Amino acid sequence: MTIGDEILFGQITDTNTQWIGSELTSIGIRPIRKLSVGDNPQDILDALGEFFKRADLLIITGGLGPTKDDLTKHTLCKYFDTELAINEDALELITSFFEKRGRVMTELNRQQAAVPLNCTYLRNDWGTAPGMWFERDGKIVVSLPGVPHEMKNLMTYRVIPLLNGFFDTPAIQHKIIRTIGIGESFLAELIENWEDNLPAHIKLAYLPHFGQVKLRLTATGESFEVLSNDISEQVAAVMPLISKYIFGYDGDELESVVGKILIDQNATLSTAESCTGGFVAHKITSIPGSSAYFLGSVVAYDNEVKKNTLGVSDEVLQEFGAVSEQAVVAMAEGVRKRMNSTYSIATSGVAGPGGGTPEKPVGTVWIACATPGETHSRLLKLTNHRPVNVELTSTYVLDLLRKSILQTIEI
Amino acid sequence: MTIGDEILFGQITDTNTQWIGSELTSIGIRPIRKLSVGDNPQDILDALGEFFKRADLLIITGGLGPTKDDLTKHTLCKYFDTELAINEDALELITSFFEKRGRVMTELNRQQAAVPLNCTYLRNDWGTAPGMWFERDGKIVVSLPGVPHEMKNLMTYRVIPLLNGFFDTPAIQHKIIRTIGIGESFLAELIENWEDNLPAHIKLAYLPHFGQVKLRLTATGESFEVLSNDISEQVAAVMPLISKYIFGYDGDELESVVGKILIDQNATLSTAESCTGGFVAHKITSIPGSSAYFLGSVVAYDNEVKKNTLGVSDEVLQEFGAVSEQAVVAMAEGVRKRMNSTYSIATSGVAGPGGGTPEKPVGTVWIACATPGETHSRLLKLTNHRPVNVELTSTYVLDLLRKSILQTIEI
Repeated sequence: MTIGDEILFGQITDTNTQWIGSELTSIGIRPIRKLSVGDNPQDILDALGEFFKRADLLIITGGLGPTKDDLTKHTLCKYFDTELAINEDALELITSFFEKRGRVMTELNRQQAAVPLNCTYLRNDWGTAPGMWFERDGKIVVSLPGVPHEMKNLMTYRVIPLLNGFFDTPAIQHKIIRTIGIGESFLAELIENWEDNLPAHIKLAYLPHFGQVKLRLTATGESFEVLSNDISEQVAAVMPLISKYIFGYDGDELESVVGKILIDQNATLSTAESCTGGFVAHKITSIPGSSAYFLGSVVAYDNEVKKNTLGVSDEVLQEFGAVSEQAVVAMAEGVRKRMNSTYSIATSGVAGPGGGTPEKPVGTVWIACATPGETHSRLLKLTNHRPVNVELTSTYVLDLLRKSILQTIEI
Repeated sequence: MTIGDEILFGQITDTNTQWIGSELTSIGIRPIRKLSVGDNPQDILDALGEFFKRADLLIITGGLGPTKDDLTKHTLCKYFDTELAINEDALELITSFFEKRGRVMTELNRQQAAVPLNCTYLRNDWGTAPGMWFERDGKIVVSLPGVPHEMKNLMTYRVIPLLNGFFDTPAIQHKIIRTIGIGESFLAELIENWEDNLPAHIKLAYLPHFGQVKLRLTATGESFEVLSNDISEQVAAVMPLISKYIFGYDGDELESVVGKILIDQNATLSTAESCTGGFVAHKITSIPGSSAYFLGSVVAYDNEVKKNTLGVSDEVLQEFGAVSEQAVVAMAEGVRKRMNSTYSIATSGVAGPGGGTPEKPVGTVWIACATPGETHSRLLKLTNHRPVNVELTSTYVLDLLRKSILQTIEI
């Protein structure tokens, strides 16, 4: 459960519940519900009552900040019939937190050290709001601050060890097969027979996302080893049907898969971006250690930059335009030469919402990959939505790179 | 309500409910609860029952895809005691959708044209799954596909016009004051008296996010004009207390605020990025029309690129290192010269998790802004978290640019 009007009103993005869902699943606790309520004590109390009828564990995030719109702690006191008292350890931590940063501590900050008397105090070494663990009738309620890195550290170092001791959980195993270049319903047709014959304890889900479809297998049972085995068997059975679309498994992203291949080959990469505006470089550098193979990028939004820094000729820009096969090939080859990399990729297109013409409507995008041998290019016909076009172009150009390196490209 | 195990298990990011919350709020409908349940008919039925006790409108997204894990439509039939029948208009749309793309239509795709007999069919011109509108006891249940752009178009062109006719909604007005460079609790101390004297029909919330704090005022009443006036009065009252921290209002982002200033000045911008790896350029180019002022970026991950493309000298890199004031200033001035832009910004730091030293631990970042006059630089001491450091650096360097242009920088 998350608490805060700002989530209901759509004013902030909640990333906490996704992370918590994934962590709980990985230790064999099955999330059955996710709830957001506003900054309203009665809604919080109602939600606590519903939880006690339905589940064994409730994790609450949010509403523990120092400012006056934060009600969680007072409401928990009411529900668990107790009152707040300053916790000395928490007070010490908060005091030193402010001392280290050379900042003055306010009375509001001091009150963050107060916790309900009948909870187990969870020390927060990463911020100023302590976590709280309540037990009642064999069920657990945990309250954590909403700041993502504080919540994650408290979960990892305080809550999960306690949960592992408290619950006797069933075994759950997941396996995700990651595909690119085929739509959900076509994939479904290809594997229909296999899907119909899955054993009852294994569930399949299709998760489409920006040109990719993840196939998620979930097995529930008594033993991790048995489940692991059952899932491996099913993966082996489905593989031959769809192998050309598979680029990875589980947490693999295109950018991490490509990074591993580059490291294996001791090869380097550079990028030249127009319509993606730096997003391809951002995806590549979001992988820790990417400096081992990524040299850099030229984001060439302006045609002068395409000419001066990437060496695209005036003739190409005049005759074919910046959104053309000729231009994107020259961009890829230009940045490869400039940065002296083994491989390079380039993007040029009409991201939208403006800039479209009858010949090159919004969503027209050229991508290219230059290698020590030849340069491959592709025309993409995407959507009317700028952020979607940026995401899809980045995905497809990374896949073009992957196939070019592995020489599995279909000409 | 969103439906899908993948959301509970944390395998996809739900962005739909944030958008829906924001849209509903803007038309005067107050979201009171957000719920996610799994692919389980009983959980969906339970949630429908709870909704009917609590609210007047339920919007459901997800579970309408062509594959077998999608249960929403069948469960809605059960709840509303009806059955599915092919809708001819929907079938025609789906058929032409596949024809236009030159793809073969499958029986699974055909079944997407089936809708419950007693719902109002909502034509989906943007995909293959129709929307559905159910009425019972003066309450509304709407079911939409989970694909974000389909859901958004259906909401905008089908659902919201129907909602405006159906409900007699109270007036709600929001105003967001966006600040940077001050923590939540310090802001709270500065405006304590003002906050304590807010009238009862205006609520205040603090929304911290990556170095920024949004102050959200929400007024509820009978007339938009009165509320608008009440909020303007409060904004005018708080302004003098915190004006130096305010960079915008409502939907303003740093990158859009900076873009407007650059357009006003008929000025141009370039960027040179090391530790942010293209994210600053991505933020800038996420604004439609940014090609009017953004020329391009050099992402210089490798020191050779810093030297050859940005003109950072060997001496600076040898003596002070790539993460230094000297290097980041040379990067900013180098890219400004290369791209011939009015302004430029640069970043160089240790993003982590690796690469830290005792003198320059993870989170040490230098930023700079070069102008036609002088070049300003700042040292940031950030966190141990790579993505957080990338976000915070991008935010602070855009703010350094804003202050440099507006000449409100404190030396």
